[in-house]
Amino acid sequence: MLIDPSKKILIVGLGLLGGSYAMALKKKGYSVSAIDIKESSINYALEHKLIDKGSVEVDKSLLDEADIIVFALYPHTFLKWIDDYAHLIKKGTILTDVTGVKGGVVSYVQDAIPEGVEFIAAHPMAGREVSSVENSDDSIFKGANFIVVPTEKNTFSAIELCKSLGHELGFKDVSQLPVERHDEMIAFLSQLTHCIAVSLMCANDDPNLEKYTGDSFRDLTRIANINDEMWSELFISNREVLLTQMDKYKSAFDKLYKCIVKGDREEMRSMMRLSSERRRNFDKKL
Amino acid sequence: MLIDPSKKILIVGLGLLGGSYAMALKKKGYSVSAIDIKESSINYALEHKLIDKGSVEVDKSLLDEADIIVFALYPHTFLKWIDDYAHLIKKGTILTDVTGVKGGVVSYVQDAIPEGVEFIAAHPMAGREVSSVENSDDSIFKGANFIVVPTEKNTFSAIELCKSLGHELGFKDVSQLPVERHDEMIAFLSQLTHCIAVSLMCANDDPNLEKYTGDSFRDLTRIANINDEMWSELFISNREVLLTQMDKYKSAFDKLYKCIVKGDREEMRSMMRLSSERRRNFDKKL
Repeated sequence: MLIDPSKKILIVGLGLLGGSYAMALKKKGYSVSAIDIKESSINYALEHKLIDKGSVEVDKSLLDEADIIVFALYPHTFLKWIDDYAHLIKKGTILTDVTGVKGGVVSYVQDAIPEGVEFIAAHPMAGREVSSVENSDDSIFKGANFIVVPTEKNTFSAIELCKSLGHELGFKDVSQLPVERHDEMIAFLSQLTHCIAVSLMCANDDPNLEKYTGDSFRDLTRIANINDEMWSELFISNREVLLTQMDKYKSAFDKLYKCIVKGDREEMRSMMRLSSERRRNFDKKL
Repeated sequence: MLIDPSKKILIVGLGLLGGSYAMALKKKGYSVSAIDIKESSINYALEHKLIDKGSVEVDKSLLDEADIIVFALYPHTFLKWIDDYAHLIKKGTILTDVTGVKGGVVSYVQDAIPEGVEFIAAHPMAGREVSSVENSDDSIFKGANFIVVPTEKNTFSAIELCKSLGHELGFKDVSQLPVERHDEMIAFLSQLTHCIAVSLMCANDDPNLEKYTGDSFRDLTRIANINDEMWSELFISNREVLLTQMDKYKSAFDKLYKCIVKGDREEMRSMMRLSSERRRNFDKKL
């Protein structure tokens, strides 16, 4: 065990990610408890032995027992929880999260928590097209990236603990990025791709598309089946950064468009060669 | 065997698709020969028993023996071949192809071939990110779509023969579309997706992207490793139709962009719900 096995872990928010964290950590032998407002989620997790203890209320005794608290909530719910309950968290507790955008979250939480409590942000780059604890599946972490997002307020030991958490959960690569760089990276790699998939799926109302499709369209639209509540919040909370990345992509698309208009095959092929070269580098490091 | 086993099949052009056709048809027990200008390709196919006979020249005896000729060439090479050699094809032969765009091809070929020879166009919606006969793999046809593209010049029996060919190759769905509808469908489902993948891969020159990526970016760029010679030709030969589909997609992308600028979460979520609903229909019919 990479983390001291006497450390107790509390998960706040038992959705797909919270449940999958619980599943992975329990399998490794850690003591895991959870808080979620939905009774059925707590009951499911107890019945399926994803957690040792659970509560539908912000139970002071669970907070007092916890050495590490993982917040697996939507961003605005996370911030609201911090506003309402952070004062109840005991000194020495390490907090972490799963939030997909860090800009509005990390400094807010670090400023709001009591003296002696430390928040080290993390972004597990894993998910599924379904939500809720009943779909928990720790295999989504295999081969995936886990990004730790520290600030100057973080201690070396908390950063290392958070990295150990990523490894214990089963992530393949655990890396580290500053807040701004994380949000820029995520805007390009994750949010922009979801924008593209949704736009592509909305662009054509022909009801027979699937009869004639190849794999490329299926691949590009896998993520078009999207959790609209979560993603619209993520888009809005990273608005400026996302728009910049959308602009970059639009420029490249418009360049290719102009090549086709002009019949400029050489320029088109040079874009395709750049694209192929870059994508091959991607493969190698997989 | 769905096709009369006494029928001999000649494949002109032994690349990835030609080789994979040969592999599938030989496994089913058909007699298969091939013509390709590359001696190494013919030798490879003979050694690996993908074909019974082969020639690097347009061998009149192979043409005379053939009942069905499959052209697995790039569009312009196919048309050039027809110009140069179509007069050598004997009466009663059925020709088919694998060309990804039909507009400039089907009527041209149907007009150029001798009386008594019939060309029935087909589009096997399968491929790989690699080319050449050495990468032949008939498993690429499994679960894939095969589209027969007849015109009013085609006979019922040739259309049925071509459909049987699709089934014998191992395609899951064999369907039929008129030329214009085929090209429109392909522009949206296949060409546009390749435009998007190439643009996305060209949009950002950060060398560390792959360290932070999730599956969505990998999925969207799988096809960004692209055969620039073939695809630039396909884009140019379907230019007007492709530009129309690119415009449709740009409108949807711009609509989403504006939602993000305005912070219009309701409109954003309604696009996401439409996208999810459509994508789920896709899954069901898989």
